Amino acid sequence: MDSNERQGTWLWYPEDYEIWLHAKVSVLRQFRGYICPPPWRLDSAYDNVKFRKTFDLAAPGKLTLSVQGMFVLHFDSSMIPTPYERTPVTTVEIPAGKHELMVTVYNDKAVPAIYPSGCGNENGWEVTSHNGTWVKAASWQFNEIDEPPGDFPFSYETVEPDSVKEQGEGTLVDFGRETFGYVILLGVIGKGTIRLYYGESSEEALAGELAETFDELVVDSAVPTDYVTPVTRAFRYIQLKLDPGITYAGIRHEYEYLPMERRGAFRSSDERLNRIWDLSAHTLHMNMREFLFDGMKRDRWVWGGDAHLGTQINNYVFFEQDVTKRTLVALRGKDPVERHINTIMDFTFHWFLSFREYYLNTGDLAFIERSYPKMLTLMEFCLGRRNEAGMMEGFPNDWVFIDWAPMDLRGEVSTEQIFLCRSLETMELFAEKLGDDGNKERFGKLARELKDLIFKLFWDEGQGGFIHSRWQSELNRQILKYPNIFATRFGYLDEKQLDSVKQNVMLNDSVQKIKTPFMRFFELDALCRLGERSHVLDEIRSYWGGMIDLGATAFWEEYEPSVPPQEQYDMYGDKFRKSLCHAWGAAPILLLGKYVLGVEPLAPGYAEYRVEPDLCGLDWIEGKVPTPDGEIEVYMDRNRVSVKTCGFGVGVLRIASRSMPSANDGKFVQIGEGLYELRLTRPGHLYEVELAAATVEVK
Amino acid sequence: MDSNERQGTWLWYPEDYEIWLHAKVSVLRQFRGYICPPPWRLDSAYDNVKFRKTFDLAAPGKLTLSVQGMFVLHFDSSMIPTPYERTPVTTVEIPAGKHELMVTVYNDKAVPAIYPSGCGNENGWEVTSHNGTWVKAASWQFNEIDEPPGDFPFSYETVEPDSVKEQGEGTLVDFGRETFGYVILLGVIGKGTIRLYYGESSEEALAGELAETFDELVVDSAVPTDYVTPVTRAFRYIQLKLDPGITYAGIRHEYEYLPMERRGAFRSSDERLNRIWDLSAHTLHMNMREFLFDGMKRDRWVWGGDAHLGTQINNYVFFEQDVTKRTLVALRGKDPVERHINTIMDFTFHWFLSFREYYLNTGDLAFIERSYPKMLTLMEFCLGRRNEAGMMEGFPNDWVFIDWAPMDLRGEVSTEQIFLCRSLETMELFAEKLGDDGNKERFGKLARELKDLIFKLFWDEGQGGFIHSRWQSELNRQILKYPNIFATRFGYLDEKQLDSVKQNVMLNDSVQKIKTPFMRFFELDALCRLGERSHVLDEIRSYWGGMIDLGATAFWEEYEPSVPPQEQYDMYGDKFRKSLCHAWGAAPILLLGKYVLGVEPLAPGYAEYRVEPDLCGLDWIEGKVPTPDGEIEVYMDRNRVSVKTCGFGVGVLRIASRSMPSANDGKFVQIGEGLYELRLTRPGHLYEVELAAATVEVK
Repeated sequence: MDSNERQGTWLWYPEDYEIWLHAKVSVLRQFRGYICPPPWRLDSAYDNVKFRKTFDLAAPGKLTLSVQGMFVLHFDSSMIPTPYERTPVTTVEIPAGKHELMVTVYNDKAVPAIYPSGCGNENGWEVTSHNGTWVKAASWQFNEIDEPPGDFPFSYETVEPDSVKEQGEGTLVDFGRETFGYVILLGVIGKGTIRLYYGESSEEALAGELAETFDELVVDSAVPTDYVTPVTRAFRYIQLKLDPGITYAGIRHEYEYLPMERRGAFRSSDERLNRIWDLSAHTLHMNMREFLFDGMKRDRWVWGGDAHLGTQINNYVFFEQDVTKRTLVALRGKDPVERHINTIMDFTFHWFLSFREYYLNTGDLAFIERSYPKMLTLMEFCLGRRNEAGMMEGFPNDWVFIDWAPMDLRGEVSTEQIFLCRSLETMELFAEKLGDDGNKERFGKLARELKDLIFKLFWDEGQGGFIHSRWQSELNRQILKYPNIFATRFGYLDEKQLDSVKQNVMLNDSVQKIKTPFMRFFELDALCRLGERSHVLDEIRSYWGGMIDLGATAFWEEYEPSVPPQEQYDMYGDKFRKSLCHAWGAAPILLLGKYVLGVEPLAPGYAEYRVEPDLCGLDWIEGKVPTPDGEIEVYMDRNRVSVKTCGFGVGVLRIASRSMPSANDGKFVQIGEGLYELRLTRPGHLYEVELAAATVEVK
Repeated sequence: MDSNERQGTWLWYPEDYEIWLHAKVSVLRQFRGYICPPPWRLDSAYDNVKFRKTFDLAAPGKLTLSVQGMFVLHFDSSMIPTPYERTPVTTVEIPAGKHELMVTVYNDKAVPAIYPSGCGNENGWEVTSHNGTWVKAASWQFNEIDEPPGDFPFSYETVEPDSVKEQGEGTLVDFGRETFGYVILLGVIGKGTIRLYYGESSEEALAGELAETFDELVVDSAVPTDYVTPVTRAFRYIQLKLDPGITYAGIRHEYEYLPMERRGAFRSSDERLNRIWDLSAHTLHMNMREFLFDGMKRDRWVWGGDAHLGTQINNYVFFEQDVTKRTLVALRGKDPVERHINTIMDFTFHWFLSFREYYLNTGDLAFIERSYPKMLTLMEFCLGRRNEAGMMEGFPNDWVFIDWAPMDLRGEVSTEQIFLCRSLETMELFAEKLGDDGNKERFGKLARELKDLIFKLFWDEGQGGFIHSRWQSELNRQILKYPNIFATRFGYLDEKQLDSVKQNVMLNDSVQKIKTPFMRFFELDALCRLGERSHVLDEIRSYWGGMIDLGATAFWEEYEPSVPPQEQYDMYGDKFRKSLCHAWGAAPILLLGKYVLGVEPLAPGYAEYRVEPDLCGLDWIEGKVPTPDGEIEVYMDRNRVSVKTCGFGVGVLRIASRSMPSANDGKFVQIGEGLYELRLTRPGHLYEVELAAATVEVK
């Protein structure tokens, strides 16, 4: 049999695998030996589902079927006698002509699923959760009949330590950089306990019981035996402590990961920037697994805000959209909506905005359509929580987050209203794309009314920016960067307001600093949009470079340069609680790709895009940005720019230059003071531009 | 230690045990060896919950705790190191003063639960499903620390067969009446298979593979060994078929049941009626288990209509309210509401009406309050499905049932609107009792408007009753009993209309007959309300007596006297599919208790009640009707009536008599033509009335 011939695939109720898997991984978090289930509802798959397919065969055929769960078959509404426990293969003879097969499956332990093979395989199968409608059955990469949807299919690689040395009463093992997986102790002889204290820093590993995670291996072997730790951990360092009399021959690490290609790239004449990009890619890769997690050491949870940023970074390096989709499905869970995403009001809005980014980058309207009903119910939940003024305040037990920096989060916080407004605009956009005219009208109107109110209440002409909040009818006139960042990013400000925000807020040193790399991304992104690319590059060098100077091999959950080095790993009032490999720390990839290589989609799925490379004082830059159809490759130095277009869409190359001749061959068009544009109409071609002459060669 | 001292009890999130258990039992149904999961969503317990309690001890105390699931403890917000797998007993020292203990529990296999003992035991514990609110933790009879909520705690009794005889190629075992449980084959010797074919009738058992259920025991024993069947079955007969060479010493049956006392009773001078009452009580008992099931042989499912009638019958014999509550919780499941109860529109309404009956009989407002949020969401679901006229039609894939008799169920069926109207009135009542004024107004207004519309559209003055339906703007003027029955029962008709319905519909032989004992109850109940008690008694004798004449030891799912005896066990187009022990078959208990003994609550929990015994031509009647506080005992013959009042409330004894002196001692008050009333003001007393003299003695 041709090994390329597709045999079949496992099918299930849409979203059930993601939701089931999310619950399983959400309870893996441990803290010093104890479990930490998340403080939100964990949904599961539907236990009781029914699959159906109508066959219309010209000649009789044979369907083989495997089922995960108890099941019963009905053929043209009559039961087919079959054993109801899972069998490797059940065979059903399908006569010619039109016939319907139904498979009722019950499973309260794993995802109810079927594997049909033959007679069209997975095509045409529908499934119901008994809610009165049938939907297309879902599948993913579970193509082996004996590997039904369950444990996530990771890849593994055995890794040797960089160094192993005795230190104090134990042994310190260093794997050279942040990693994740199991630990193998080779050739163990003796009886007793081996203790492994994990550390993202050597300080944490050496702190023993104060480390966030540790394991104990109870060993008892007279001949050399290998022992493997029972669960996966994140670490760079391990402190080993062995009971007297125990010996071992070596230590290895089984690295567990999602195989992904770095389709994006960035190199420049500044090695520090290059290193920042590399560590960012590693940081993100560590956190992209079943879902996009916040950080691997501590939470291993899926958070709406982290996902909003992380999935955008992903678009500039791996462009791995299955993780994004799983993440957005997992965050939302099932109906009814009882709380905000992760209980955090702004994370609900980040969830909506993630879909906007997803759609812009991929053009995948099918996923938007599938998710739209759940967007609607979540938006209704939000609208039901507006106060009399039409704005959203945190309800008791709601978490209003924004950033870890101190601020008064009571009442009507302007940033939250700006988020709500953008979420409404996003719903308006999707309603339009999906032909839901009534909701397009409704959400559009609500967004416009809210925007008017935001400006009326919170725009402070005197201070030149948005003020923070209103609480109990009293305005809190504090100027913080957050509302100004997002109003800038969402295009809510006119030229004059943009300039005012830039001078009076964004570049104003007296305004309170942002505390997380998460919110720092949005700040720097806004600054780029305000024309401060070189300034942003300096910030990347000093802020992310500052972590490297402190020994980072991945980027952190929080970084405040003024904190003394010995306290840099502390957070939440505890030693070593800080995550040193946090997805949102990878933001430089996004900033460098979007504003230095300068690549950005303008229409869904890169149907239109802009390439606006900017040396920002560097000698040269080069890199790649992934798109749904190949990569856009960019090179620039002081003399020339080259762009290789991706396989689809129409781009525009924009060059800022004071010395460029005025588009003498008619290809470059001057669109403003020292600003030139060239249309990149040919997919998959290399455009080479000599800046001095403004000549363009297309290969 | 004093064995009466309460040690503690298992606690969980309210309704989680019922919902978890319901899913488990719903998939036990089998048909000829294959599973039959129900065609509706099966919910489960919340996997991830958190318990809390605030202690305020005068002196330090010790709390012992067992947990079903993984768990972590926090004391005054700090984690207490404890192993997170379930331990028999974890001990927590609680200091004096105010302190909070939190227990986070995760369990995706069983109901997350805790067993606190000491420091106030289960009192004061709250729990959250992470929906933003805390509620009082629920408990039931799981009081042993090593018996957490799981398998339902049944009772068992070993039963000998009535007869065992060779018949054809096998052996026919008769247990004398319908029963349920396991079968034990004693002293088996030999190797091979023993086949057990179960039958509610001997015909079914003898039909072998055509029986609804059968089991195979694979045996292999050289010495006498007992074998037990793997699952519970319902049967009266078993046909045994043994492979050659297999012998056995005897057969027994392990009867599995919920222990309940027959608090109600009925005896009369008519032995046929007495037998009907007995078989009714047995029929109901067989179906009252974890929940109130429809029938034990086939479905073993919980149905809203069956529950509405079955729980009312229960009120006149067992008064076992835990089963009723579990049943109503299981039927509703969790939010969101996506379909009608059991997918049947009228069963949604039966669910509302069950609460009304429950409240009237028990006065238990606490259960109403706990269930009220789910009543609201279900009612919103209904209101969201009204058409432009404000009426409910079956949506595609909705099941509109009413009765198994043939009728056109398309469009606006008048019976369904009458059900909706009564459901709205029920919500109005509960909203009033719970102080939800806005909803009281709203539901009341909707009910009044709908009632007006029902009369305007469907009341046919010419035919003297309600017509059937409207479909595509065309009225279907067929007269069926259903709308007229329920309008009568709900008190929607004036005297003239009642008389018209009685003559033109209810006693009109040309009107199509009702097909199920289910709907026959409502018919006969309405006839009693229309003054036709003696006629109803005749109907009970002939209809239910007719099943006894055919050999019934329990009452059936459906009975049509005109069907030939050899086809009486067929249903749904198949041999022996009919359930011969169906809860709704037990309705005579309710009719005899309510209209012959004549006992009925008038105010919630029997705060007020009526006793209106009626000989209906019998020489004497006697019996008991259970109430929340003892039984009301009634005796009547042609000369005297005696009533022993229950322990609570005020009754009224109503006597119809043509010969009674006009209340000469001032105790009986004449309230109409030949109708006298005596107030029974003393709880727990015996009132003896000599009818000829109208004297009353109170003991």
